[in-house]
Amino acid sequence: MVRILVALGGNALQRAGGGGTWEETVRQMRSTAPGLAAIVADGHELVLTHGNGPQIGALLRQNEVSQREVPPRPMDVLGAETEGQIGYVIQQELTSALLKAKVPRIVLPIVTRIVVSRRDPAFRKPVKPVGRYFREVEARVLRKQHGWQMEFDGARGGWRRVVPSPKPVEWLEREIVRRMLDAGWGSRCIPIVAGGGGIPVLDRGRGVYEGVEAVIDKDLTAALVGADLGADTLAIVTDVPAVAVGFHKPWERWLADVGPKELRQYRQQGEFGAGSMAPKIDACLQFLAEGGRRVLITDIPSLGRALRSEAGTRVVRA
Amino acid sequence: MVRILVALGGNALQRAGGGGTWEETVRQMRSTAPGLAAIVADGHELVLTHGNGPQIGALLRQNEVSQREVPPRPMDVLGAETEGQIGYVIQQELTSALLKAKVPRIVLPIVTRIVVSRRDPAFRKPVKPVGRYFREVEARVLRKQHGWQMEFDGARGGWRRVVPSPKPVEWLEREIVRRMLDAGWGSRCIPIVAGGGGIPVLDRGRGVYEGVEAVIDKDLTAALVGADLGADTLAIVTDVPAVAVGFHKPWERWLADVGPKELRQYRQQGEFGAGSMAPKIDACLQFLAEGGRRVLITDIPSLGRALRSEAGTRVVRA
Repeated sequence: MVRILVALGGNALQRAGGGGTWEETVRQMRSTAPGLAAIVADGHELVLTHGNGPQIGALLRQNEVSQREVPPRPMDVLGAETEGQIGYVIQQELTSALLKAKVPRIVLPIVTRIVVSRRDPAFRKPVKPVGRYFREVEARVLRKQHGWQMEFDGARGGWRRVVPSPKPVEWLEREIVRRMLDAGWGSRCIPIVAGGGGIPVLDRGRGVYEGVEAVIDKDLTAALVGADLGADTLAIVTDVPAVAVGFHKPWERWLADVGPKELRQYRQQGEFGAGSMAPKIDACLQFLAEGGRRVLITDIPSLGRALRSEAGTRVVRA
Repeated sequence: MVRILVALGGNALQRAGGGGTWEETVRQMRSTAPGLAAIVADGHELVLTHGNGPQIGALLRQNEVSQREVPPRPMDVLGAETEGQIGYVIQQELTSALLKAKVPRIVLPIVTRIVVSRRDPAFRKPVKPVGRYFREVEARVLRKQHGWQMEFDGARGGWRRVVPSPKPVEWLEREIVRRMLDAGWGSRCIPIVAGGGGIPVLDRGRGVYEGVEAVIDKDLTAALVGADLGADTLAIVTDVPAVAVGFHKPWERWLADVGPKELRQYRQQGEFGAGSMAPKIDACLQFLAEGGRRVLITDIPSLGRALRSEAGTRVVRA
């Protein structure tokens, strides 16, 4: 039984563009779940994590629109809310798909905190855009009112709040989840951990962890969690079937089997988009450096075949 | 080591009246946490559950105010969000209080679903008011637009949405949590389960559970969960130090040690308020009937002494 951590991209739950209804989220997850159940039916041990981009965006928007009626909640709390919300929809749909595949499991979403470092350079230079676009005059007010850092997005002609995206350092609920898997409970349950990259907290010493307004890249967290749990394989599920070099160019080439060294070279040559594929490649290299054996980057329809080395991009430790 | 399920009332997290800021919630939980840590330091095994009244009220209000901008989410999903949100604040403050009390534990909030029955009479007669007050003309629109059941509250002179409050039947994540405790992990971790009474779902067969717009009484769920986990003691933490008969009348009398039979008599005599103490008494009787040994009803300042039979109302199985 091979231990596999699957990191579901936000699009496994909600199509890009946001504004989706909850019914759409349920439908989307319903179409994703059988692919995950098939992995379990193939005899693998599954642990899940997931993104939360569109979902936390919706909560931020609600905060903003209703701020005169309901006191807004900080981003760490909204992150916890998305862990509950998304954990629940995965739990609902996956439980049912697993039973249908004759491999019943208890799906267990766990609220998870990830320690980040105050000395992380990300806190000096927030770059991760969150929430909606604003006009310049609004941006000025928000900057003054909340101390938000605002950045102009030329392509869309609007201003957006940017927050720090620090690196995940440590995972506070690790011990119990690791213990569950090591006791063989992976044949009974599927933990969902560190959703949305985990709730970012700063270690203030003496057991005091302070929530912080930031977002952690969910793939980097997946690499950390996967290594901590002794996973054999990290499967990064996104909206493309594999990684390409020369993406959308005449010399475009899809990568099947590729070594970490070659991948690092492509990365240094600037092959991968900063907001999209590059963090996945970094997560991939980090997981392999910390003892993982294999990373798959693929989409849900190709996941099963990727596990059998018949699809997706497969990166195996040298 | 005695296994104790503590059910925290909403006021352990937010003072009545709602509209509280998140900072207030944190402060409130920070003052609650040392009392819980003291129980652990006294050598007891702790499991937690909690209410979510004011918190789900705030989310419903946000749904309503921002519905033109963000598609509203149904109540089961909001319930899952409060499990994440409240689980997180308890986790943060309790982890720190436990370390200060020199009994470090991993606090583990778990997203929990509770099965309710479609045949529950509560679905024919929704009685639980949720969200804010409306004027009559608004109530008429909401009834038409969303099919909500609205009820007039004479005391406040406004209309409120009422939703069903069905009885909890079964707890879907039970097996793993029970297994954790039976393996002795109660000395390493403190699970938080079935927050807000649990996410209400209907069993549609073949592993399909359908979320439903309802709220489950958190004390009745606590009785179910406590019995399922083989807890010795159920401690219902509320905002009064003990249960009274003749409450606020000249012959008012606080109950210290009381048997289930006597308590049931008071209950039948209408001693306890329908929306406040009566469900706690029902939960108490149910827990004892299902094998629990002792129920404590008290407030946070008295909890430690109640456990030593020096405060609170103590109900012990006959």
